[in-house]
Amino acid sequence: MPTIDEYLAAHASQFEDDLCELLRIPSVSADPARRPDMERAAGWVADHLRAVGLTARLIPAPGPPLVYAESPPVAGAPRVLVYGHYDVQPPDPLELWTSPPFEPTRRGGNLYARGASDDKGQVLTHIKSAQAWLAAEQRLPVQLKFIIEGEEEVGSHGIESFLAEHPEHLACDCVVISDGGKLTCDIPAVTYGLRGIAYYELRVTGPNRDLHSGSFGGSVTNPANALARILSAMIDRAGKVQIPGFYDDVVPLGQREREQLSSLPFDEAAYFADIGVSGATGEEGYTTLERRWARPTFDISGLSGGYQGQGAKTVLPATASAKFSFRLVPNQDPQRITAALRRWLPGVTPPGVQIELVDWHGSPGVLVPLDSPYVAAAARALEAAFGHPPAYTREGGSIPIVLTFHQMLKADSLLLGWGQDDDNCHSPNEKFALADFHRGIRASAKLWEELGKIAKQAAS
Amino acid sequence: MPTIDEYLAAHASQFEDDLCELLRIPSVSADPARRPDMERAAGWVADHLRAVGLTARLIPAPGPPLVYAESPPVAGAPRVLVYGHYDVQPPDPLELWTSPPFEPTRRGGNLYARGASDDKGQVLTHIKSAQAWLAAEQRLPVQLKFIIEGEEEVGSHGIESFLAEHPEHLACDCVVISDGGKLTCDIPAVTYGLRGIAYYELRVTGPNRDLHSGSFGGSVTNPANALARILSAMIDRAGKVQIPGFYDDVVPLGQREREQLSSLPFDEAAYFADIGVSGATGEEGYTTLERRWARPTFDISGLSGGYQGQGAKTVLPATASAKFSFRLVPNQDPQRITAALRRWLPGVTPPGVQIELVDWHGSPGVLVPLDSPYVAAAARALEAAFGHPPAYTREGGSIPIVLTFHQMLKADSLLLGWGQDDDNCHSPNEKFALADFHRGIRASAKLWEELGKIAKQAAS
Repeated sequence: MPTIDEYLAAHASQFEDDLCELLRIPSVSADPARRPDMERAAGWVADHLRAVGLTARLIPAPGPPLVYAESPPVAGAPRVLVYGHYDVQPPDPLELWTSPPFEPTRRGGNLYARGASDDKGQVLTHIKSAQAWLAAEQRLPVQLKFIIEGEEEVGSHGIESFLAEHPEHLACDCVVISDGGKLTCDIPAVTYGLRGIAYYELRVTGPNRDLHSGSFGGSVTNPANALARILSAMIDRAGKVQIPGFYDDVVPLGQREREQLSSLPFDEAAYFADIGVSGATGEEGYTTLERRWARPTFDISGLSGGYQGQGAKTVLPATASAKFSFRLVPNQDPQRITAALRRWLPGVTPPGVQIELVDWHGSPGVLVPLDSPYVAAAARALEAAFGHPPAYTREGGSIPIVLTFHQMLKADSLLLGWGQDDDNCHSPNEKFALADFHRGIRASAKLWEELGKIAKQAAS
Repeated sequence: MPTIDEYLAAHASQFEDDLCELLRIPSVSADPARRPDMERAAGWVADHLRAVGLTARLIPAPGPPLVYAESPPVAGAPRVLVYGHYDVQPPDPLELWTSPPFEPTRRGGNLYARGASDDKGQVLTHIKSAQAWLAAEQRLPVQLKFIIEGEEEVGSHGIESFLAEHPEHLACDCVVISDGGKLTCDIPAVTYGLRGIAYYELRVTGPNRDLHSGSFGGSVTNPANALARILSAMIDRAGKVQIPGFYDDVVPLGQREREQLSSLPFDEAAYFADIGVSGATGEEGYTTLERRWARPTFDISGLSGGYQGQGAKTVLPATASAKFSFRLVPNQDPQRITAALRRWLPGVTPPGVQIELVDWHGSPGVLVPLDSPYVAAAARALEAAFGHPPAYTREGGSIPIVLTFHQMLKADSLLLGWGQDDDNCHSPNEKFALADFHRGIRASAKLWEELGKIAKQAAS
């Protein structure tokens, strides 16, 4: 029998062909006309899991089905849930693709296709590592459960409902998610923190109709003026949110974590050059990475009011509104933030206008304890596969499903992305480096081994 | 021969029928399909002026023609230019009209039709007064010139071009305009001041694309945040514009004018109730009428940026923009205001964003000297016709043509409106009180007499 490494080496080309097969299915979840392709992609993933040696089935949902698979329980070893998605972003604009989005094409060591990196290629690494284990060792060191959804790009409704109704099906000791990137091309990363969010819309209403700014201006509170004043009052020039209580639950960044973050090879000049700005503002006293990943923010996402057409219209608008959010750090509670905001708003609202605050959505941030045995196992696996110990990074955005796993399954997620920043995940010419595909498979195979060394938790 | 008053009394019913004839022509300048009706309305006005005994002609323009008419010069007496317009606002929404907009209908002492008050009914008062003079006295006490345009509701392009090219055609000693309202139903008004305006668009540009507010938020200057801060910095809570130099040229309101304004029967509670607000903010230290008519303002007319659709989108927008204006008081120069604004903006613009200021348009305010013999003549005419001396009022808006007459003809305008606030000039169910139509004709007839007593200026 070959070793796992020998098996991987011998089947490298076959694995790429399998990935191409999946990439040819245009499983665009946003496009209702692609519904048959969604079914086809789900079927392909389930068949593949079955062919590898797992028990697989489709779980019907109002939208595209969920794919579920599992290997047998392993006494004394953890249960590991692999999460991923088989749906992809729309390929538009098509004219910007060098090769057709659903005809996978190898160029310069990369495989170009919609979904190559996000997330079909990364999902397949975990299936292929299981295949290698089962072929070479006839066993897996842990019980694997796969839940692969088809609605990640459009809101994850099916999996969220399924989790709410049947959390016991997905019971596990940790979750593994590969749906992102490494720190650099050659330095892998464990993402241990995600920010939360509290997203609102503030609608300011004044007079009962748009008024002539000449006849009335100066004597009436202008809702757009009032909105600008309220928004501007939310944050000072030093980047500090001014709402009393906003920082009450923020855990200060420890010295050790700040040193660790500042030791990351982050090229700030390249970061700003990519965005196209020559300077920036942010919370005083914090580095750019801290501002992105580990500090709360206030950002306006939309402004609307009055005349927005060409040229000039001398109107004093009856209403004006803004969409805005606070990114939250772990331990901040969106509901407490909402309450603090509601207490603060009346004091900054001038007479003559009414305000309405719409609380669109909120979710807290997540932190995975870095001292957990799962993180240590992942670190060993990543170093073995990539030849470099992982960087420990946080992420400025929110991944709602991670929070759901945390809340419903009481399981922390290992966020281990194999991609790169320039994979063009939601853009034309999406690609996945073939080297990353194979390193990902090796890291995954090693991960099952390392996780298998962890004594199964008492609770499970 | 009848006296003028006898002639007016004998022809009251005929005059109303003539007005109805003009009102039946749907001369909606904004609607290209109505172009033949524009020609028809212009022809009707010219024919009518000719029938009355004046020399009339149409002046072609790229848009609807101008109607010009004149009576013979009167030695030693002023030349008086009557300005008005024969075009009307669109009648939409039609379903809100009680009677059809172009089928003039008498109800409760009013004549309902689009254009009844704005401005066909008011224009006709000056034609009918000339008719009465010529019929009863076979002469006019002044030389009258009429310039009646067809683009007042869509920008007055034709008349502005004509004035720029041929100001000598309209040479005059004063201009009479009836295109507005009295102070109350029974108190006529002379409007002696108009505010100017300086209208801008401020475009704030940050990153080269919309960014994910999670991945980037906190580390990038958000253009919408920056815009809110800049706009908010333009004016303080006391309603004072914060741009250095903004008030330099403002002539303080004199005690006598403030007393005069405060003596006007202005019902502030009714004003706010009509607008639908329970309170207001404005420049501290000034009354509501002073804020509306005689003090400069800052009003945002439009806000635009980022996501404005339904629900939430977590975007950090690449750009945000605002349209805003300062209303200016006489003696403030829009170009100096623009220069002051351009000097001030960089200091309030945070690093990481670029600003672009578009100067859409500007015009200074106008004040007619209250001690002129023309104003005195108008006051006598108004008191004779309405039984009450006029109120002296200012207006918060700008009337560009008044400024053009001032600049091109060196002539002040007498703004003498016969309408009422509730005439629904740009709304469904526009009306003109028949009593106002007839009082307007009497006031106009008296005005020619009173103006005729003024010795012609040396310059003319």
